[in-house]
Amino acid sequence: MANTLPIDIVAGELARLRATNPLVHLLTNEVVQEITANVLLAVGASPAMIVAEEEAAVFAAISGALLINVGTLYPARLAAMKLAVAAANQAGVPWTLDPVAVGVLDYRTQACREFIAARPAAIRGNASEILALAGFAGSGRGVDTTAGSDAAVSAAEQLALSTGAIVAVTGETDFITDGTTTWATPWGHPLMTRVVGTGCALSALVAAFTAQAPNRLNAVAAACAVAGLCGERAAGSSRGPGSFKADFIDALYLISPEKLRGQDA
Amino acid sequence: MANTLPIDIVAGELARLRATNPLVHLLTNEVVQEITANVLLAVGASPAMIVAEEEAAVFAAISGALLINVGTLYPARLAAMKLAVAAANQAGVPWTLDPVAVGVLDYRTQACREFIAARPAAIRGNASEILALAGFAGSGRGVDTTAGSDAAVSAAEQLALSTGAIVAVTGETDFITDGTTTWATPWGHPLMTRVVGTGCALSALVAAFTAQAPNRLNAVAAACAVAGLCGERAAGSSRGPGSFKADFIDALYLISPEKLRGQDA
Amino acid sequence: MANTLPIDIVAGELARLRATNPLVHLLTNEVVQEITANVLLAVGASPAMIVAEEEAAVFAAISGALLINVGTLYPARLAAMKLAVAAANQAGVPWTLDPVAVGVLDYRTQACREFIAARPAAIRGNASEILALAGFAGSGRGVDTTAGSDAAVSAAEQLALSTGAIVAVTGETDFITDGTTTWATPWGHPLMTRVVGTGCALSALVAAFTAQAPNRLNAVAAACAVAGLCGERAAGSSRGPGSFKADFIDALYLISPEKLRGQDA
Repeated sequence: MANTLPIDIVAGELARLRATNPLVHLLTNEVVQEITANVLLAVGASPAMIVAEEEAAVFAAISGALLINVGTLYPARLAAMKLAVAAANQAGVPWTLDPVAVGVLDYRTQACREFIAARPAAIRGNASEILALAGFAGSGRGVDTTAGSDAAVSAAEQLALSTGAIVAVTGETDFITDGTTTWATPWGHPLMTRVVGTGCALSALVAAFTAQAPNRLNAVAAACAVAGLCGERAAGSSRGPGSFKADFIDALYLISPEKLRGQDA
Repeated sequence: MANTLPIDIVAGELARLRATNPLVHLLTNEVVQEITANVLLAVGASPAMIVAEEEAAVFAAISGALLINVGTLYPARLAAMKLAVAAANQAGVPWTLDPVAVGVLDYRTQACREFIAARPAAIRGNASEILALAGFAGSGRGVDTTAGSDAAVSAAEQLALSTGAIVAVTGETDFITDGTTTWATPWGHPLMTRVVGTGCALSALVAAFTAQAPNRLNAVAAACAVAGLCGERAAGSSRGPGSFKADFIDALYLISPEKLRGQDA
Repeated sequence: MANTLPIDIVAGELARLRATNPLVHLLTNEVVQEITANVLLAVGASPAMIVAEEEAAVFAAISGALLINVGTLYPARLAAMKLAVAAANQAGVPWTLDPVAVGVLDYRTQACREFIAARPAAIRGNASEILALAGFAGSGRGVDTTAGSDAAVSAAEQLALSTGAIVAVTGETDFITDGTTTWATPWGHPLMTRVVGTGCALSALVAAFTAQAPNRLNAVAAACAVAGLCGERAAGSSRGPGSFKADFIDALYLISPEKLRGQDA
């Protein structure tokens, strides 16, 4: 069903990101802020965590992209997120939603319901999260949280159609869809699941790639591909999750459009 | 006085942890959240930081274990902790207290006094912290914060008897006691004190090992042993605290019941 | 104009820091707390993040030095910072200001205006930040945020004279001034800008070196030199920003007065 994303598209999107070095406003969870910033710096974007209600709106409006991650949501941070989203929408800044654990806890589920209604440019989640979101996004069908990735791809496509967002459902293979066209990115390594923040940092990469993207579907898919390819390289050179983390960030720094085009992917 | 924990017990407890992959709810300090999560992921547990008052109680009740660490306490976080502890107690979820710097600052000292009264399953602290706790836990003797580790072991035993908790007092040698039986775990390396969060992450390991533990004393002692053994291995392969941190997390991933049983410890 | 800081001064200041192992109270931003603590532990200081309004004043008064970093400012943290600064001033504890992104966002700019009036012992910022501070510190001249480092050095000198602080303006070459004498520290590597928190951690090093410093200008300059020299070493041994971070912290641990005096700097 889904075709594998051509490496040429990954190379082109990475070249575009490096040329523009976008400023990315990150309202993410407490646990992963350092790795998220380091992933963006390594790949060639400029991260900024501006978290106060007093500053979030002004900064979102002057950023190239915005990330909203609800992993450690609490009232003050949620208020800053809502102000940032409103300002981003007003200014035409694309924003990405990472709906961590949506559907498991009511407080964040309600918050995600409101975020979905505010029309994110992209949504990045695992199968359970995308299934939960699709269940209340007006997609018109029930969802089964025990369903496999096939069900999640279908939910992702319906979520994309009903919200207008590019939806990435990530796992062993990632699927990225606008509801009509769906790319698969088969790269990655299980060791990524043993390092906190690799998924959250991928959502930040998605946000970075959406900045001024002429083709948002390709941009989001390229972000998933870059993370997966660098994860494979890091897994090949590391002994465990501690060395993997350093090697993964090195790989994001060392990957290049030229090397991608020259490889037998 | 205290016997050294047999390696067979460490191996058995590690095998049990790996088989159950417990979900551990972490309400810990701001500084160490990433290393704490990575230590648990490496060893084979599933960490989750759910920090809001709106979510902490619900999540604590569905977790396998809970950690309370008062390192960067402030009112909103303290409120979430109290809700989580109450819910854990209600649901029979064991929770561990890390009383960082108790006795030094009144605000956290008062909080720890209340936490002790709520009957934690385990307490992990250094000598000064355990001495301070024992001083107000009804153990009936004064404590001398300048006392050495012998005095701390005695305080730990009395604290265990008066609270019902397993108490681990950690340092060059760790002592783990239920007030009657006391294990010593002599492993570790001074470089561990040059990396922020190794002590806090050990408390998270203690919490993880208490999940569904048939023998809570052995579980807590095994957590201390695993951290110390992995610290020794990392010290042997690293050049300083930067590389030590990665090597320590790799060691937690690579350690196994089989290798433990085969070693001449 | 500015002379290069002699390596003998760096060696002497590092020996003094290692001999005193100062306790440094850090009120810094959310993103960089772990690397900041690890940098101080590696070099030989004792970091402590005590962040609550209930505890910040008491702890600042018993610390050897205090750092205020406004990177992720919000009302509760700002309140704790003001209490800590007042207590530090009362107790004669030197405090360092890192005015992250001052001039870009009104909320933190107003906070920095108040902090400057409270007379920090040291200020560490990049050219834009120092130019912004000088613009409202009564230095009597306009500032051009697009100006190069020459203009920033002049602004730093005027800021030092008008506030009484040692001012470090850092970049490819760092300049450290009391308004009359200005040292240059030419060491460092561009890879440092690809790792989040190297600048913030440098400000923490500056704070650590100011503790009980007989010559505050030399102390601040030595902090900049140590960071730059260790950055060069880490760049020589690493493949990208991931391995650089570990190697940088190792270098801070391995650097010594003896090796500094023996090197051909």
